[in-house]
Formats: sequence, structure tokens, C-alpha cells
Amino acid sequence: MPAKPARTKAAAAAPAEALTALDLPPAPLDAETEAFFQKCRDKIGFVPNVLLAYTHDLAKLKAFSAMYNDLMLAPSGLSKLEREMIAVAVSAVNRCYYCLTAHGATVRQLSGDPELGEMLVMNYRAARLDTRQRAMLDFAVKLTEAPWTVDEPDREALRSAGFSDRDIWDISATAAFYNMSNRMASATDMRPNAAYHGLAR
Amino acid sequence: MPAKPARTKAAAAAPAEALTALDLPPAPLDAETEAFFQKCRDKIGFVPNVLLAYTHDLAKLKAFSAMYNDLMLAPSGLSKLEREMIAVAVSAVNRCYYCLTAHGATVRQLSGDPELGEMLVMNYRAARLDTRQRAMLDFAVKLTEAPWTVDEPDREALRSAGFSDRDIWDISATAAFYNMSNRMASATDMRPNAAYHGLAR
Amino acid sequence: MPAKPARTKAAAAAPAEALTALDLPPAPLDAETEAFFQKCRDKIGFVPNVLLAYTHDLAKLKAFSAMYNDLMLAPSGLSKLEREMIAVAVSAVNRCYYCLTAHGATVRQLSGDPELGEMLVMNYRAARLDTRQRAMLDFAVKLTEAPWTVDEPDREALRSAGFSDRDIWDISATAAFYNMSNRMASATDMRPNAAYHGLAR
Amino acid sequence: MPAKPARTKAAAAAPAEALTALDLPPAPLDAETEAFFQKCRDKIGFVPNVLLAYTHDLAKLKAFSAMYNDLMLAPSGLSKLEREMIAVAVSAVNRCYYCLTAHGATVRQLSGDPELGEMLVMNYRAARLDTRQRAMLDFAVKLTEAPWTVDEPDREALRSAGFSDRDIWDISATAAFYNMSNRMASATDMRPNAAYHGLAR
Amino acid sequence: MPAKPARTKAAAAAPAEALTALDLPPAPLDAETEAFFQKCRDKIGFVPNVLLAYTHDLAKLKAFSAMYNDLMLAPSGLSKLEREMIAVAVSAVNRCYYCLTAHGATVRQLSGDPELGEMLVMNYRAARLDTRQRAMLDFAVKLTEAPWTVDEPDREALRSAGFSDRDIWDISATAAFYNMSNRMASATDMRPNAAYHGLAR
Amino acid sequence: MPAKPARTKAAAAAPAEALTALDLPPAPLDAETEAFFQKCRDKIGFVPNVLLAYTHDLAKLKAFSAMYNDLMLAPSGLSKLEREMIAVAVSAVNRCYYCLTAHGATVRQLSGDPELGEMLVMNYRAARLDTRQRAMLDFAVKLTEAPWTVDEPDREALRSAGFSDRDIWDISATAAFYNMSNRMASATDMRPNAAYHGLAR
Repeated sequence: MPAKPARTKAAAAAPAEALTALDLPPAPLDAETEAFFQKCRDKIGFVPNVLLAYTHDLAKLKAFSAMYNDLMLAPSGLSKLEREMIAVAVSAVNRCYYCLTAHGATVRQLSGDPELGEMLVMNYRAARLDTRQRAMLDFAVKLTEAPWTVDEPDREALRSAGFSDRDIWDISATAAFYNMSNRMASATDMRPNAAYHGLAR
Repeated sequence: MPAKPARTKAAAAAPAEALTALDLPPAPLDAETEAFFQKCRDKIGFVPNVLLAYTHDLAKLKAFSAMYNDLMLAPSGLSKLEREMIAVAVSAVNRCYYCLTAHGATVRQLSGDPELGEMLVMNYRAARLDTRQRAMLDFAVKLTEAPWTVDEPDREALRSAGFSDRDIWDISATAAFYNMSNRMASATDMRPNAAYHGLAR
Repeated sequence: MPAKPARTKAAAAAPAEALTALDLPPAPLDAETEAFFQKCRDKIGFVPNVLLAYTHDLAKLKAFSAMYNDLMLAPSGLSKLEREMIAVAVSAVNRCYYCLTAHGATVRQLSGDPELGEMLVMNYRAARLDTRQRAMLDFAVKLTEAPWTVDEPDREALRSAGFSDRDIWDISATAAFYNMSNRMASATDMRPNAAYHGLAR
Repeated sequence: MPAKPARTKAAAAAPAEALTALDLPPAPLDAETEAFFQKCRDKIGFVPNVLLAYTHDLAKLKAFSAMYNDLMLAPSGLSKLEREMIAVAVSAVNRCYYCLTAHGATVRQLSGDPELGEMLVMNYRAARLDTRQRAMLDFAVKLTEAPWTVDEPDREALRSAGFSDRDIWDISATAAFYNMSNRMASATDMRPNAAYHGLAR
Repeated sequence: MPAKPARTKAAAAAPAEALTALDLPPAPLDAETEAFFQKCRDKIGFVPNVLLAYTHDLAKLKAFSAMYNDLMLAPSGLSKLEREMIAVAVSAVNRCYYCLTAHGATVRQLSGDPELGEMLVMNYRAARLDTRQRAMLDFAVKLTEAPWTVDEPDREALRSAGFSDRDIWDISATAAFYNMSNRMASATDMRPNAAYHGLAR
Repeated sequence: MPAKPARTKAAAAAPAEALTALDLPPAPLDAETEAFFQKCRDKIGFVPNVLLAYTHDLAKLKAFSAMYNDLMLAPSGLSKLEREMIAVAVSAVNRCYYCLTAHGATVRQLSGDPELGEMLVMNYRAARLDTRQRAMLDFAVKLTEAPWTVDEPDREALRSAGFSDRDIWDISATAAFYNMSNRMASATDMRPNAAYHGLAR
């Protein structure tokens, strides 16, 4: 007897799936958090599940959000798209379902190139990148896979590709951050918002 | 100066991208191949690029197609969706852009569950699979990553999950086939048909 | 008390060992298959066990044989020995007992150099190969170990060693095929014909 | 001729070594940062180099410090020593010179057991840990080495060892944070304060 | 144009191949060494190349031989065949051409089972071993691949399979010794005596 | 409830910890061994536990000591410190608690540079080594991690860094020896003398 499909849309639509595998009741939101979440809803239509997952402890939510916002949105020699490209390439090494879904969507959106998002999820080496961006992702991936082998020649390769020392900090900080975030998502089985899947296809 | 997006839709749409990185002019198609390709167009709207990539030698094309068709379409204790699920889980280990794109689309289509396709591309362990399908993919992935360690307890685990010895052959043959196909695609930098990307989202 | 030898020749000679760990009764052979098997007996003295292992389903046997024969015997820029060398080097990475036994024997036979066969089984880097053949095996082994990292510089290295784009296809197809075959043998615990062991020593 | 010692104490004492391999001039410190640094000097006698390395951008310094302080010092089901033990076990996988030096010293200090600090740096499996702490470090190390394989049985193992779901969050967050920090240190060749080496031996 | 065989028997028979890739002239042999080498010639027909490779420094030759002879020939709860089986299984992990050739031959000889020798070279998991010998090789291989993960449960598994603590020492010492020897052979490109290849086939 | 420290100094000071996890009663020491152990006590203040661990069989103790003494103390193009540096870099790859503790202490002592000892334990790439010593450790580490890939270009790199063929033998022999020793220590859970921890800090 042939097997049945793993899940049907009906099943998927049914009772709300838990955000994570941990039973951590949310704390009451303070005004600052309410305002932040409202800003999310205004801007992207929903509050990313990663933020909801942190609501069990507002101090942790604020620390995480502050670092995230500085890293991904503050002025930098790296474009916002480039920072998202690093997020996806790193998350692909770590096979992180949450981050690949969320940041894959953002790459599709910011680049206007859905295939680029797909390629970074699947294998960034398949993407037709210019020398600069290829060097950037090569560094981020090496730093993810074997940080203990990163050495001066790796930094020199970035400088040769046109990056400043501050850019190297920013590439490193972005790659490093997703090595943290990927592990929080995997450790807790964090589930991405369904809205990401259809975004900017 | 912030970097520019890696590629724009305009650029992507421009002159037809090469099928592979190898310069292998197609042979003239014989009637049998023409008919086969027409059947592809009728059924899915296009000829998969992997078939076009083999047209430089029709004997190879026919051998590949015969094996593919038997494996993926012939009667089996595994549903067609399950065979596609194996294709994607194996291709994810091998990070094969072509196969993840093509078979990821087929999983979305056959399951009616786009998220399932995404999860298998990203990390099959994130999918909510029943015991049978989880055992099936665990075996396929182990066979992909470290075939030399596969031993009787691994076959027993499949039998315990309800698979017959013939099913074990079919799971193995499917996983093994994509270990071949993934490597042909990576070795030649094979590019998937653009049509797959938007399919069944 | 000293341990006893693991197995004696007497034991090994006793009741015929199963071809594989799967209980899959052979289908009745059709005339085409009978003729093919007779040709094997005439040419090498026996029917390779891998073919017998496929007799539970003649469609699968024919698809496998057609691809095998095209790959290993059809005209190519690679000599038959070179294709067998790839088979052994790939099977060594995957530690496949069946394929190392069968194709190790063929390398010994075609090369008239038993040590070459041994070296490819044990570590191809120990063999005194010319630049062309070393480049060929380096590519095949990289494609086996980490297909996702194969990129244009790897193809360029083959071209520099004198290979045409068609040769690159053939190297890739051979390496890819044994990545499939190795996994079928490991998944099913396929046992090689005893005759291979003493061949061309 | 025998080689000379790699470096002498004199050499090491000479001109101040750079904090990192990146040329990033510090920003002028604001009052809040001055106060924070003064608190460090009062408490441990010096400002940890990791903080100085972030002074090129005070927003990043504050985001990093806020997360660090919450993680390592806020109330938790994990003792401060246990959080430091995770820091060292994770940093050992990533072979991070900065973090092993700094947090190895803290483990020596908080535990009053210098050998424990050494064992966690070298191989945490050599330490005589109780079931609870061994489970904690096994989880942290698996999450570091292969986050994509962490699954419900891993969380169950922590629960069986007596950890609450909130504790699991805290173990994960600590392990994840050092996967970030280790990569910042390796990417930038961050050098630890010399004071750590002799601490609590 | 098809490639030519990599080497012919004629070529192989030609001028004596160097023992290793290092240019280390042998020291004049003292009487003790002469007697030892004569004993080798009497017993196995030739002096193993590994011993010749050490003749550049007789102190090192004697230390190596003393350890080798105690380990492989002194009374032990492990039979001589079992010690040779460990030698081959370890050398297979390390893909050591010299040791696989020499000790593969000895396993064929001592067991009277040529296929057993082949299986240990190719993949020890393919051999039909009893529980005791499988446990012995599983331990030796784990100790070779990831010594830092060997822990009390691994020793307990050996005890359950019937090994005494002294046997565990001997298994460990044999596996450890070939981890040394394999590396000397690989580091120096040591070539085995041609006589091994045809032995006990 | 916060966890208690894993162990207290009191506990550590209590009844003498077993040398290894194996129950192997020491043989009565002969005069030669007594003299050797007295020499150890005179020179370094104690008998290294590794020697005590071998006292269950004096033949093995003597073979081990003879090889050790020749390797680490005989004249060589490598200084004693350099041989100890190799010991530590290799033991760091294998995460061997015993050898890192004992030889880490010796590096601190011989170099007069405690930080150098720490860096070699944690990540030798963090140490500011000259070209010669970096090449030496790169070779030793590659030989440890993947001996089957060591080939002529690796030996050439050592020659370019100023090493003679005899030096290459000595580097290889030292790295190979600790690949043996690390595995004996891990297989038996060998515990280092407490005295090492505080040495030359």
C-alpha cells in the first residue's frame, strides 16, 4: 500500500503550532515591547516568531533585539542585502530551518531576485556573485565551519576584495551572530512564521 | 560605498544561461527522444535541463532516463512523494542546487504542502514526519553521509518501521541514484529550469 | 586463552553465502537476460553478483546494465583502465567492499600491474601516477567527498591536465556512478564473487 | 643548529601587543562606558580586552555587554560556575584562544579547582562531573558541533537530568553566545589580557 | 587518444625504488642488527622495508623493533592474528599503503583466509566477525578516529565481550602503535616490500 | 536551586585517584626500573604517571621509555623545546588530557613563556611563531588529522623552511609518537600527576 502524504494543508492550518519545543509562558509585555511589536506589524505585517520566543524574559528579548537591530540595520560598509546574504549562507552551513526561512525571504525581497535567495539557502557557491561578495561569503562560511583555522591570510583576502577593517568586523559580527541565532533556533526547535514561505517568490 | 545587489531580474532574464559549465554541443535528437521531450512539455510544460544536458550523447540520455523513470515512476511500496522526499533529503546533504530546486518543487506539488518542501531542503529533521517517513529519511541520509557504516541494525530499523525488504531496496536505490545525480550536477554546474522556482509555492 | 581464527576456509566454502542481506527472490530470467548472463560467463567466467542481485526486478537490472555498459565500455577519451581506476578510487573513499573487490581485480587485470590495483584500494595518493591521471583521480575523489565544493577551478585543473570537456563529463559520470553503486552495495551488504580475490595477483 | 625558543618573556613584555588584527581606532568613551570600565577595574583589576576591542563603536559595545551581563550574571537555574563551564567547553570545540584563556581562568576561580578549569579546556570528558553537569556539557557541545542534529531526545536528556525548560533555554543561550563570541575572537585574532594566565592557578 | 597504463611490470621491476622519500643514508649495521635482519630473512625471506628505513639511526631502529616485537609477539590474551587484525583495521582508517600491504598479508597468512585480509583492508564491517572480534575492532577504530571520545562505556563494551583489563591494554596498545606507524609511513612515503603483494592469496 | 561546584579541592585531595581506569596491578620493580624512577624523582621531583601506568609489565615499560628517551632527549636538529611543542600541538588535536597537562608544563618550563604553553594547548595558530616553527607544527598537525593526505609538497614545505631530511624524520617521529601516546592515555583514562598543573605558570 503506497504511503500517504506526510501532512496536508488542512492539518497544517489546524491548531496553532507551538513557537518552540520549550514550555516557557510569555511575560506581560511592557510598553516599550508593545511599541516594538507594533512597529514590526506595521512594517512587515507580523511579529517574527523569534521575538515572541524571547517574550518569556523581556530582558533577554531587549538584549537580543538591540544587538540584532544594530547589526542588521545600522550604517555599515555592507549593504543590508549583503548582511542578509551572510545570514543565509551561515544558516545554510548550520542547516537552521528558522533562519533560512526568515532570512531567505528577506534576501528574495531586498534583491528582487528570488533565485538568489534559493541559491544561498542551497549552496552559495552556485550563485553568480562578484568577487567581493564571493570573498565575503567564503570568509563567513569558513568562520562558521572552522573558526580556529581563520588567520591573517583570510583577512588579507577580504582586504584584497576591497573590504576595510571595519567591514571585516561587520562581516565577522554578522556571521558570528547567526552562529548564535542558528543554535538558539535548533536548540529550541523554533518555528518560523508561515508568512515567510510565500514572500517575494 | 554600499555594495550593489548581486544581480537584478533584468540581468537574469537576459541571454540564456548555459545549461552547464561544459561546452558539449547537443546531438541531433532522434524520434524517440523528440517524443520523450514532447511528453515532458505536455506534462510539466518544459524539458528538464538535466535531460537537455545529456543530449550531447543520446545513449547516455536514454540510459539515464530509463533508470530515472523506473526508479521514480514504477510501482513501489514507496509513494511517488516519498521517493521525491528521499531525493530532496539526499540532495540537501550534498547541497546540490539543481536537484534541490527541481525535486523541492515536486515535493511541494505532490504533497500540496509547500512548507514540507522547504523543510526537506533546509533540514529534514525539522519536518513533522511520522515514524515511517522519519526512519526512511534517516536511512537515506546515513547512506549518503557514511555508506560504509550502514549495517544490519540500520536495515532492521527500516523493517521495524514497517518497510519490506523490497522497500529497503527502493529506498536505497533512490538515495543512491541522487548521490549520482547530485554529483553530475555539481561536477558540471548544471542549472535548473527557471520554472521550478515559482512552482507550487 | 588465545582467540581462534575468525573463520576458516572450510567454513567459507560451506553453504552458499547470500548475495545480499535482503530477501528478494529472483524473477524468472527472460531470453535477453539469459543471453547477457551467458556472455558474462563466456567472457569472465561468471556472472557478477551485482547483476544477480538485481534479478528480483528485470527492469531495474536492464536499466543498471545499460548505464554500466555505456559508461565503462563505450568509446571515451578515458581508457577502460582509467575508468576502472576512477571506480576504485571512489569506492575507496566510500569503503565499499563489493566494488573494491570487483574493480580492484579489473585494474590489476587491465594494467598488468597488481600493485597499482592495491594502491588504488588503499590510498591512490601512494601510486606513482602521471599528472593527467593524478588530476583525474583528485577530481573524482573531491567530487565524492564534497561535491558541493566542486567549482570552476576544479574543472580548469582537468583542462590544464589535458582533458577535454567531454572527458570531464566522462570522469564525472564514472565517479558519480560509483557513488551510486557503492551505496547500493553497502545498503544491501552485497557480497562479491569469490573469483575476484585471486584474479591477476 | 638547534632552533631558538619561539619567544622570550622579554619580547612578550615589550611594546603593547595589538588587541586584534584589525585597525579600528577606539571612539571617545561616554560616561556610561567609563563607569562600566571602572567597575571592571574595581572588580577584576582590569578591563577585559574583548570590551576594549568593541570600543571602536559604542553602540556595539553596549549591545554586547548587555547580552553578556544578562546571560552570565542574571538569576538562572544554572550557577555562575555552570555558565562558565559551558563557555569553556564550547570554546574548546572552537579552539578559541581568547575565550579559553578568559573563561578558563574564571572556572578556576569560581570552582576553586584549577584542574577543573584545565580539564574543560583540554577535554571536558576527562572531568569527573556529576550526571547533571555532564548532560549539560554534552548538550552544549553537540549544539556547537552539529546544531542541525539537535532534536527532542536531546532536550529530553536534559529534562531527565533535572533541568527545567527554562534551564534548557539558559544552557542553549550560553552555548549559542560563545559560538558567537568565539568567532568574533578568531575572526579578529583577539588577544586576552595577560592577567588571566596566572589567575587562580 | 586513450591514455596509456600508468605503469608496466617492466617499469616496476626496473631500478630499485627508494624506501622512502627522505634521503637518509643507512648507518653501518652492528652485529646485533645483522643478526636480527638475518633472522628476518630466515623466517619470512626478506627484511621488511620499515626496518631498513630505520637503519639511518640504529638507536631508533632498536627502540622501534623492541616495542614492535613485544607488542605483536609477546604472550597476550589476544592471538597474534587478532593483533594483526587490529593493525589492518587501524591502518585502513589511516589509509596507510605500507601497513595495509604488510599486515594485510600477515592476516591472510595467519588466518588462512585471504578474503578476511581483503575485508579488513576495505571495510572491517563487511567481515563476518564474532561478537568478541567485532567489539575489539570497533574499539580500535573509535580510538583511531576520535580518541577524545573514548570513555568508560567503551571499556565496558570490551569487558562485556569477554576481554580482561589486560586485554583492553593490549588492544589499546596495538591500535595506538599503528596510529604511530601509519604516520611514519605516510610522512616518509615508505614503500612496502614487493613480496607482500602475492603472499597467501 | 543553583548547582553546586563539580568538585572541591578537599575532594580532589582525598584518597589517591587511580592512575588509569584499568585494574592492572604493578609488577615488582627490578633494579634498572628503580634506578630510572629514582632519576625521575631527582630530576623533576616525581615519577610521571605514564611510567607508573606501564609498571604492570616491565618489558612494555622499558620499550616505551627507550623510545621516549631517544625521541625527546637524543641529539636532533630540533631543540628539546621544539619536540615538546610538537607533543602539545598533536595532543591538542587529539584532546588528550594527560599529554596536554604534562607536555604543556614542559613547554612552559623550557620556553620560560607560560603563554606559549597555553597557546599550543588551545590553538597553536594563535602563537606568534617564526616561519620555521609554524611550518613544523602545520606538518605535525596535518600528519595527525589526515595522514593519508601527506605528500611530497608537504615535505617540500618543510625543506623550504630550512629543515633537513633528518629533521623531517624527527618531526614525523615526534608527531607519530604522540599519536600513539595520546591514544594510550585516552583508552585508559590516564590521569596526570597533580604537580604538572602549577608548574612554570
